[in-house]
Amino acid sequence: MECPLCVINRNELIWQDERCCVIPGNDPDYPGYFRVVWGEHVSEMSDLDARARRHFMDVVFAVESSLRALMVPDKINLASFGNKVPHLHWHVIARFADDRHFPESIWGQEQRQVPTRKAPSYAALAARISFDLAQISVSC
Amino acid sequence: MECPLCVINRNELIWQDERCCVIPGNDPDYPGYFRVVWGEHVSEMSDLDARARRHFMDVVFAVESSLRALMVPDKINLASFGNKVPHLHWHVIARFADDRHFPESIWGQEQRQVPTRKAPSYAALAARISFDLAQISVSC
Repeated sequence: MECPLCVINRNELIWQDERCCVIPGNDPDYPGYFRVVWGEHVSEMSDLDARARRHFMDVVFAVESSLRALMVPDKINLASFGNKVPHLHWHVIARFADDRHFPESIWGQEQRQVPTRKAPSYAALAARISFDLAQISVSC
Repeated sequence: MECPLCVINRNELIWQDERCCVIPGNDPDYPGYFRVVWGEHVSEMSDLDARARRHFMDVVFAVESSLRALMVPDKINLASFGNKVPHLHWHVIARFADDRHFPESIWGQEQRQVPTRKAPSYAALAARISFDLAQISVSC
């Protein structure tokens, strides 16, 4: 079976550099849900060398801080599973105390039905990710 | 309410340095489940500076690679939620294709009942984590 993360739909790309990209989570209950996808088909973080891992996580944390700035969520959730699609990708999810599963993970027991929040502007998110990454490279 | 991760039971400590520690996940279905807990009471990764974040993730990935070496799992799962206990901690879980929830996350729908695997030796895990961290500091 072809790996669905080896081919990213260009229309979905929110941000990218030469090593990874950011795409929407596409869950109507979670407009603040994004995925950071590694370019190469690799299954575990410890398959990457330390520098590649650090870059990948810098992007994950830039998405986190951008979502905090743009959506002011109650919590950020981060996860890398890959049990179904073993191609490295991080889930970055802005969580709200009144969202569908809070305080459970979004893969847990539903707690309530809630109206959909507004997604952040993808252009604003991309700009903020680039800004945050520039800050990190200055500080390290 | 007192934060349960601000006070770690010394008997549970598998590995520690001056900034974080590794404790068991204490889930009988998941003997390869460990938590990496940040020392200070901080709720989001983006509340840490870039250097602290990188150190924290280096430890998370050292636990990952140690579990891969000691247990040879089918997949590693990593997650940081903190919806219930907003004190930074990472879940590092060795997953097996025949475990209780695979391919779902361990917070998802149960798939089967399975006998418990053997946990790795905590002394071997601690030694391997220290070894892996030393490798990373040499390579960066």
